[in-house]
This record gives sequence, structure tokens and C-alpha cells, in this order.
Amino acid sequence: MAELAIQDSYPDNVAHCYGCGRLNEHGLQIKSYWDGDETVCYFRPRPYHTAIPGYVYGGLIASLIDCHGTGTAAAAAYRAEGRTMGAEPAHRFVTASLHVDFLHPTPIDAVLEVRGQVKELKGRKIIVSVTLSARGEVCARGEIVCIEMPEEFGRQIGE
Amino acid sequence: MAELAIQDSYPDNVAHCYGCGRLNEHGLQIKSYWDGDETVCYFRPRPYHTAIPGYVYGGLIASLIDCHGTGTAAAAAYRAEGRTMGAEPAHRFVTASLHVDFLHPTPIDAVLEVRGQVKELKGRKIIVSVTLSARGEVCARGEIVCIEMPEEFGRQIGE
Repeated sequence: MAELAIQDSYPDNVAHCYGCGRLNEHGLQIKSYWDGDETVCYFRPRPYHTAIPGYVYGGLIASLIDCHGTGTAAAAAYRAEGRTMGAEPAHRFVTASLHVDFLHPTPIDAVLEVRGQVKELKGRKIIVSVTLSARGEVCARGEIVCIEMPEEFGRQIGE
Repeated sequence: MAELAIQDSYPDNVAHCYGCGRLNEHGLQIKSYWDGDETVCYFRPRPYHTAIPGYVYGGLIASLIDCHGTGTAAAAAYRAEGRTMGAEPAHRFVTASLHVDFLHPTPIDAVLEVRGQVKELKGRKIIVSVTLSARGEVCARGEIVCIEMPEEFGRQIGE
């Protein structure tokens, strides 16, 4: 996909997240994109992201759902306003709550497909539903409640 | 604490979890212990476990709650039977669902204290409530539903 990833449009001062920040050299650096009315992210687990050998550990699944969810929220907020992703003032969401149902063991030797749908968009609060699939089978379902990042956060980090 | 950590009593074939396996050299290797009727785990985030600079990313918090929760479930199952942790046949739990409420930003330059309490223990299902605190303030609350690992998992990995 030639378009810019949602996370690559985040301002520099909020691009250090271990899960999705392009400036975190140790991190997962996930990339999410619009695909019609859904968002999608593909991620190949590393060999050591194991739960038991052969399967992905739950913390990675939770991390992917979390970061893909907040990215989807930011993108949805821009889209709702008819603005281009990344334009100032920037939208950036944090997670108020995260819920994950683990349905099947997730194979580690597969590209994981993470898909997000906006379930509710109301002011500064956006709820995103997420599925995580491997080889066409949904292995986990998540829902995250995202809140627009408070302005004092930006001030705290010297914006 | 001189006693053996809960995770260090897991059989070798289920000790490769990125979050808590002692045999995963790339992983977090968290260590949980009984403290009265609660379990406790202390973890110092690494500098790159950032959400925004200065704060811990949510995926790590979810991972700590998840792995501390399944460890608590295994320990509680042994205790309920009056058996020593690690004795055969081994107890090992997987996560059916994970819920995390993020209450406050979690500072990255602090030792995190993760505490678990068994909320319900019924056959192969154990529900664990978890708090995650930094400098005495609860930053996140979690609840995980744990299920005894199906026997076919063991067979799949050559037990």
C-alpha cells in the first residue's frame, strides 16, 4: 500500500510508543491503514513472541489490538471532520479500557491480520471493535474505549 | 524473597512465554509470589517501553496483568488442592478473556507493583482481579478469566 500509515502521520512527540511509534527503534512499529470503512494492520510475530512454542502470547495480541484501536480512533476522528490524517491540530487517542476475548490459539508462523471497526464515535470518546485473525480464522476479538489525549499530556512532554 | 517464583515452577514445556517464561531469553521473565492471600510481582519497565515519553505503554500493562493473572491462577489451583506448586500433574492456565481499565498514566521510571486476588475458583475456570500500581497509586485495574490449559496443547508441543 502506497499511502501513509496512520501511525506515520502522528506528530513526533507522540511517535515513541513501543507498540506503534515509528520513532521507537526497539518497538513493534505496527502500521495501520484504511480499507474501506475498516482499518487493517498486518503483523508477523517474531519467533520469541511465544505463549507456548508455536503460539503467540496474549500480551502481543493485546498490544496489537490496543495500538491498532487507538490508531483507528485517530483516523476516524480526522475522517469524521473531513480532515487529512496528520493535519494540525493533531488527533491522538489513549486507551481508557481494553477487553480481549481469546477464542483460539494464535499460530506464531502466520501473518496476523488485525481489523478495526468504529463502533461508536461521540465527542472525545471513540469505541473500536477489533478482530485478530491468522490464516482466515478469527483468533481473538477485542474492544477498546479510546479517549482523546488530554492537552496536559502534550504540555508534560514539552510540546 | 527466597521462595521459588510461581513461574519458575512451570514445567519446561510451558516456560517459553514471552511475558513470564524463564526459558524465553528475549522475554520479560516476570516473577510472581504469594503474599498472604494475594500474589505480587514487581517489574521495572525498560526505557523503551514507552507510550509517550515518560509513561508506560498499555500493551506492557496488559501483558503484566495477563501473565501475573495466569500465574496466580496456577498457584491458586495448587493451593486449593493443598499441593506444592510445581508438583505433577502440573497446573497451567491460559487466558480466556482479559479486561484492563487504565486509570492514570503509568510512570516509566518506577517499579510497578502488580497484585492479584482470586475472585472466583470453580473447576477449570479461575477469575483473577489485578491491580497495577506505581509509587503507591493504582494506575490500572484488570480482570482475567483463566482456563486450565487443554491437554491437547501439551500433546501438540510434544509433551
